[in-house]
Amino acid sequence: MDEKIYTLTEMIDDDLGGKTLSESQKQEVAEQLKKLVAPDSIALAQINPTSGDVKGNALKAYEWIKWAQRLELDALVFPEMYLIGYPIGDFIDRFPLIVEENIEWLKALAQKTTGKTKVIIGFAEFNKTKGGKKYFNSVAVLADGKIERTVRKSLLPNYAEFNDYRHFEPAIVDSANRITCLGQNKAGIIVCEDGWNDFDFFDKNLYGVDPVETVVNQQHPDYLINCSSSITRAKKEQLKHNMLSFAAKKHSTPIVYVNQVGSNECLSFEGASRLYDARGKLIAMAKSYSEQFFIVSPSQGGKIYPLPNGLEKTLNSQKAFTLDHEPDLERTYLTIVQTIRDYFKKTGFKRAVLGLSGGLDSTVSAVLLADAIGAKNVFGISMPSKITSSESKNDAKQLAQNLGINFAEISIKDMFDSTRAKFDEVFDAIESNWDCRYKECFTNDNIQARSRALILWGVANEFQSCLPIATSDKSELYMGYATINGDMSGGFAPLADVSKTKLFALARWLNKNRAQKNAIPEAIIAKRPGAELAINPQTGKPLLAEEALMPYEFLDEVIWRVENLQQTIGDMMQAEFLHEKHLKEQGEPLSKEQKLEWLKKFFRRMSTALYKWSIMPPSPIVDARSINKAEYKHPIISSGINYHKTSFEEKLQQLKLSEKNS
Amino acid sequence: MDEKIYTLTEMIDDDLGGKTLSESQKQEVAEQLKKLVAPDSIALAQINPTSGDVKGNALKAYEWIKWAQRLELDALVFPEMYLIGYPIGDFIDRFPLIVEENIEWLKALAQKTTGKTKVIIGFAEFNKTKGGKKYFNSVAVLADGKIERTVRKSLLPNYAEFNDYRHFEPAIVDSANRITCLGQNKAGIIVCEDGWNDFDFFDKNLYGVDPVETVVNQQHPDYLINCSSSITRAKKEQLKHNMLSFAAKKHSTPIVYVNQVGSNECLSFEGASRLYDARGKLIAMAKSYSEQFFIVSPSQGGKIYPLPNGLEKTLNSQKAFTLDHEPDLERTYLTIVQTIRDYFKKTGFKRAVLGLSGGLDSTVSAVLLADAIGAKNVFGISMPSKITSSESKNDAKQLAQNLGINFAEISIKDMFDSTRAKFDEVFDAIESNWDCRYKECFTNDNIQARSRALILWGVANEFQSCLPIATSDKSELYMGYATINGDMSGGFAPLADVSKTKLFALARWLNKNRAQKNAIPEAIIAKRPGAELAINPQTGKPLLAEEALMPYEFLDEVIWRVENLQQTIGDMMQAEFLHEKHLKEQGEPLSKEQKLEWLKKFFRRMSTALYKWSIMPPSPIVDARSINKAEYKHPIISSGINYHKTSFEEKLQQLKLSEKNS
Repeated sequence: MDEKIYTLTEMIDDDLGGKTLSESQKQEVAEQLKKLVAPDSIALAQINPTSGDVKGNALKAYEWIKWAQRLELDALVFPEMYLIGYPIGDFIDRFPLIVEENIEWLKALAQKTTGKTKVIIGFAEFNKTKGGKKYFNSVAVLADGKIERTVRKSLLPNYAEFNDYRHFEPAIVDSANRITCLGQNKAGIIVCEDGWNDFDFFDKNLYGVDPVETVVNQQHPDYLINCSSSITRAKKEQLKHNMLSFAAKKHSTPIVYVNQVGSNECLSFEGASRLYDARGKLIAMAKSYSEQFFIVSPSQGGKIYPLPNGLEKTLNSQKAFTLDHEPDLERTYLTIVQTIRDYFKKTGFKRAVLGLSGGLDSTVSAVLLADAIGAKNVFGISMPSKITSSESKNDAKQLAQNLGINFAEISIKDMFDSTRAKFDEVFDAIESNWDCRYKECFTNDNIQARSRALILWGVANEFQSCLPIATSDKSELYMGYATINGDMSGGFAPLADVSKTKLFALARWLNKNRAQKNAIPEAIIAKRPGAELAINPQTGKPLLAEEALMPYEFLDEVIWRVENLQQTIGDMMQAEFLHEKHLKEQGEPLSKEQKLEWLKKFFRRMSTALYKWSIMPPSPIVDARSINKAEYKHPIISSGINYHKTSFEEKLQQLKLSEKNS
Repeated sequence: MDEKIYTLTEMIDDDLGGKTLSESQKQEVAEQLKKLVAPDSIALAQINPTSGDVKGNALKAYEWIKWAQRLELDALVFPEMYLIGYPIGDFIDRFPLIVEENIEWLKALAQKTTGKTKVIIGFAEFNKTKGGKKYFNSVAVLADGKIERTVRKSLLPNYAEFNDYRHFEPAIVDSANRITCLGQNKAGIIVCEDGWNDFDFFDKNLYGVDPVETVVNQQHPDYLINCSSSITRAKKEQLKHNMLSFAAKKHSTPIVYVNQVGSNECLSFEGASRLYDARGKLIAMAKSYSEQFFIVSPSQGGKIYPLPNGLEKTLNSQKAFTLDHEPDLERTYLTIVQTIRDYFKKTGFKRAVLGLSGGLDSTVSAVLLADAIGAKNVFGISMPSKITSSESKNDAKQLAQNLGINFAEISIKDMFDSTRAKFDEVFDAIESNWDCRYKECFTNDNIQARSRALILWGVANEFQSCLPIATSDKSELYMGYATINGDMSGGFAPLADVSKTKLFALARWLNKNRAQKNAIPEAIIAKRPGAELAINPQTGKPLLAEEALMPYEFLDEVIWRVENLQQTIGDMMQAEFLHEKHLKEQGEPLSKEQKLEWLKKFFRRMSTALYKWSIMPPSPIVDARSINKAEYKHPIISSGINYHKTSFEEKLQQLKLSEKNS
């Protein structure tokens, strides 16, 4: 379609985004657009709801609906569960009021619809049949002042971040009811997962029925509409694109795919709504990470906005681990920034305070925060102890200057000393009753980390709408290399799903790709990470993280193998790691003993880190798999178990041994 | 059956519990028992597994199996999912190794079975059919060296603490396969929820099929066996007893119900395995909160051990709120003590350290800890600030003495002063950039709570296997009246599901019912709760919690109505609260304005407490409903929503308004 449509609809986006047009400007935009769009055009409401804020979502929807009506389009299509917000969690079980409200708002919006422009919109519906779960995950078609029909989702995902079956009853596929006439066309409606069960596309299917096939074979719609709320994850775009294209081609039926945008807590939706033609060709695609009133014509397509790197470049993703994080960095950046921005906005926070150590984690956190909520709303505090080097202090200050964020430096030496004095007193008292004292340095390490968090939470208490930030990264969280009530404590954790090697790459990417180049001082990226909490007795210098743990290059590959391949120690001993390859090339091959020691250390440390994961603040899900609580629920009491496979013979042997002992 | 059977089997319990009998003692016990038991006897393995510890669970099971074989019983029946441990969470998705190991251990145990004594045992099974979820929730019948059959669970609960459908594929009810011959009897096997869908008993059913009915009608078993892992909750025993009794009577078929005992993280299983005869009469019941090798005869029954108060006395539970917590206190006590004990044992912790403020929360926590892990393993620290009264200090000391726990007193005045000095420095720096300073007292309040937690976590770092304890109670958690990194921070939170009015009752109950009477000084119970963190300017005395919040009697009823009746502000304005009744009786009726103000305050404070709930440490689930993370998942970003119902007319009005504005 005419490119000019999209210049004009960007004015609609501005209007909907708050830069309100006057009534006459609106009329002018509408008149121009009406002449340009194809007669079968519909608009996709790529929109950002807030979970639970039914009133806010409804009033927002109405602004969009009025635009579709002004343009006399055949339809305006919203994402899955839009009206109540997705995800909604157990909230609808405990507060059925919210569901009642979403039904009433649906009816009120229905009253405002015309005969010409239908509204297709996701909501939560009460299940009034005798049995089953309390609700349906439904999409309503509103037309001519009424609810024309209600389409219920049949396939209810219940894995990773999905909990649909917890709250909703799966519906029988009633194909006739899934059809609505939009202008001259018959459109078939599909709700998200309903479109993800093609028996030819997938090797293994989760469900026994393919609603797409049923609707197409029984009703022969002119095109399909999939109302979705599907989050961005590393390497998911590849699958989504191939699947939608495959289904459109297989059924010789165009598919319109409408996706939510924005973030609700830890889940981030990338938008990128789209249209495939009957041959499976992508013929229109909306922006990513941005709300958009997106007009498409099922027959003629529309504009194809480019996907950011990471969505686009991982289309042909490899199945092997790589240190080449570059292809996923733009998506990573956009996902985290969107999640921070929406978390602050939707919870009502405006400002962030974080410790700036001069290290990589706090540095990258500061950059992302500045981009998400504005530099003037970010306060970086350098809080040196006696172990902190002057380089670290200078690097932190330089970073703050470059970013234009607020900055203060404050020594924690006095706090450390007064705490340590009390510790000595109390430890001596305890030692006379308990003979299990460690006298290890980590007690001192933790005083430093916790004194810093005490200051940050104090700032959050004293200044309005201010959240302290937890700066832990994914690699260190796996190792439990983060202090409870210290660096892992905060109201939000931007980097909790970013591994350390990726973080280095992201820092370089930020220096190159942000409008302001090289905001991150090179020294911060160049130095090897360390918490500067303790001195390594072997080197006499601050202990480096890799000395305490293992090389990050190795660690990150273990994490990747655990998350993506579900590998065990045995599997990984068989495989060749990138780090092994690199060492071999350097003529210093890694010994099997060292490798096994690192792997055992990984599983040992991971097991004792489970509790820490359970008390992490909200954080963006970025990777293909994560340890985010919204996705992964792991029993803490399993921390003592063994991740080693034993042979069947060993097991019989152990039973025999138990006979002898008894 | 002969009472002597149970004296003898208590020796078996001692043997299995570690007080090992000699080989000749075992033979003697076995010979005596063989003469006493009815010929159709089977044993119920009321046993405590650790989630994920397949090897440990398998070796433990084998000890029990050997006893059943010595006694030549027809069968030994384990609970649902015993071998892998229940609940197992997403662990089996990320570490399929654990499932492989549980299959191999199952096969190894099978090799040890005889022709005479069958073993019926829960495990996780791979789904090798083409589609669906990766696993089945299964029960295996082991006999004669082999796996005789595998029964798969059909009804998969997925609400509150249950997540079965997340991991398991529901199985078609294959009734013939559910039958196994035990001695002269045909037994039909049912897995937990499979037995909870009777169409005559429930008004509304979650599932479309009743496996009990299918098995009984198609196979006519002599009795049914239900392998369960079902947690204790307030007022659940009533439902369970009625339902099992109803089903046995309806189908004229005895039902053997085997339940897990012990706690896995936040979930606590009470055991109380049992047998109903064909007329629905309870004819045998095992102990509660205790592992037991429990012999029953489907034809003759067995001993009926008494249920503790709270299980028994709530049989006819009322649907109204009550301040009479007495009937549920023994169950509450046993549940919390079991959960603490198992959490420490299964994670490898041995000692606990907690702050003793002289207030009710820390006092009751200390008593429960002493009973769960032993007084010598508990360290109570009194950490007065300048606001702390000398009464509070003395009460704390007296309590520690009474309990025989370790005690130290240490002032946090220096830590407060050095922290406050730093705060002043940093706040002044920030104030010059941000004009949103509060200067409210809660910043100081929080320094005190956080300095105390700093000390407790320091002790946990310095002394082996030591966990700090979070003492927050349920009423205060609902109000967010708990300090992040302060009193709500710890490795375990014993009271997080106990409301304040119940806590008072529990304190009195402890003084009356523990072996050691009146361990809790009366002054602690008599005084009105307050955090002693700030002075109330109106009274000149430390601020009381009820002054900051609302009367606990009122607050606890709001919580009860939200959790149990899903009521809204509107509903509650219609209802008469107990507190209102009490005030009326005193001639000082509560005004509607005051009531509405408290209700609004409740919802406002609850909304902003959601984040705090998300970072709470593990804690026992006690009540009928809770805010425990294992049960309730609530989007934090919904914190701004409105819990008020608005009328349809108001909604239309708001849409009209939006037209005018646009």
